[in-house]
Amino acid sequence: MLTVYGDSISGNCLKVKWTAEKLGIPYRWRELDVLRAETRTPDFLALNPAGQVPLVILPDGRALAQSNAIILHLAEGSALIPADAYERARMFEWLFWEQYSHEPYVAVARFQMAYLGKPREDLDPKLAERGRAALRRLEDGLEDTPFLVGHSLSLADVSLVAYTRVAHEGGFDLADFPRVVSWVARVEAALGIA
Amino acid sequence: MLTVYGDSISGNCLKVKWTAEKLGIPYRWRELDVLRAETRTPDFLALNPAGQVPLVILPDGRALAQSNAIILHLAEGSALIPADAYERARMFEWLFWEQYSHEPYVAVARFQMAYLGKPREDLDPKLAERGRAALRRLEDGLEDTPFLVGHSLSLADVSLVAYTRVAHEGGFDLADFPRVVSWVARVEAALGIA
Repeated sequence: MLTVYGDSISGNCLKVKWTAEKLGIPYRWRELDVLRAETRTPDFLALNPAGQVPLVILPDGRALAQSNAIILHLAEGSALIPADAYERARMFEWLFWEQYSHEPYVAVARFQMAYLGKPREDLDPKLAERGRAALRRLEDGLEDTPFLVGHSLSLADVSLVAYTRVAHEGGFDLADFPRVVSWVARVEAALGIA
Repeated sequence: MLTVYGDSISGNCLKVKWTAEKLGIPYRWRELDVLRAETRTPDFLALNPAGQVPLVILPDGRALAQSNAIILHLAEGSALIPADAYERARMFEWLFWEQYSHEPYVAVARFQMAYLGKPREDLDPKLAERGRAALRRLEDGLEDTPFLVGHSLSLADVSLVAYTRVAHEGGFDLADFPRVVSWVARVEAALGIA
C-alpha cells in the first residue's frame, strides 16, 4: 500500500491526500508535525534527506518527493490528466507556475501569519504584492472556463486550490477575485472537501 | 513552424532551444532583450500577459509558457522522457525542484551579479546559502548515476544544467562539487553545446 508522510496543515501534502482519495487509491497517512521538526529526525531524514513533506513510499518501497511530481505519478492514465496534448501542456504550465509564482508567496504569507504568528504588517511586502499578482493571474485564467484547463477538473486545479482556498489566512482578500471564489467552491465540491 | 521567444542570456530560454535542437524540431528564434524590457511591450504582452520568456507559439498558433512545460511538450514520446513510470516520476521530481529550490537562488544570484552588476557582498545572503544547498543536493543526486535519472540524458538534466553551468557567474564555486562538474560536461556534450 502507498504510504504518505505529510503534515495536515500543508497544502502541498493535502494535494497528495485529495488525489489519492479522488482516484480511490488506498493509502496510509503518517502525520508529521513540521513545526515540531518531526521532518528533521534521523528516521525521516533517512527516507528523505531534504527533510521535506510530502514524501510517499510507493507500494514497491521506492520513495518519491515533490507534491506535483507525486500527484502526476498517482494520476497517470486517469482523467485528472487531460488526454489532449495541448491541454496537458497547459496543465504543466499551471503546475510549474504554481511552484514558482504562487506557492512561494500565497503559502509562505499564510504560514508566517497563521503558524508563526507574524502580524501582517511585519511580512515582507513582496509576499503580499506577488501573492496578489498570482491571485489576479488565476482570476484571469478562469475567464473562459470553469476549471483552469478547460471544462474538467485536472491536477492544475488540485494543485492550485491547495493554498488558494486558505489564502485569507495569509491576509489575502479573495472577495477581489470572484471567479477564483466560485472556482474554489467548484474544485472543493469535485474533490469532496467542501 | 515553432516560434520561440527568448533571451539568450536566460537559461530558461536556452532549455527550449537545446531541446528543440536535440530532437531536430525546426524553430525560428525571436530574440527579446529582458534588460531592455522587450518582454513588456504591448505586442509581446498580447502574446503573454505575464510578460515572461520563454514563450513558444506552436505550429498551430497556440501559445505555451513556462520553460519546463514547454520542453515536456516538445519532448513527448522522445527518449528525453524516461519510459519507465518511476524514472519519469523522478524526472518530474527534479523538474519541480529546479523551479522551487534551484532557479530562485542559483539563477537569481547570477542575474544580479552578471547582469545587474551587483557585487557579491550586496546579494541577499539567502541566495548564496540556498544556492549552495541546491548544488550540494545535485552533487548527492549524482552519486550513483551519470545523469540525474539513471543512465540516460533526460529533461531533468536539460533543465538543471541551464543555470548550473553558469553558476560561477553568481559567485558559486563548482570546484566544491566535482560530480556536478563532470555531469555539466557530460550534459553539454550530449546536447552539443560543450
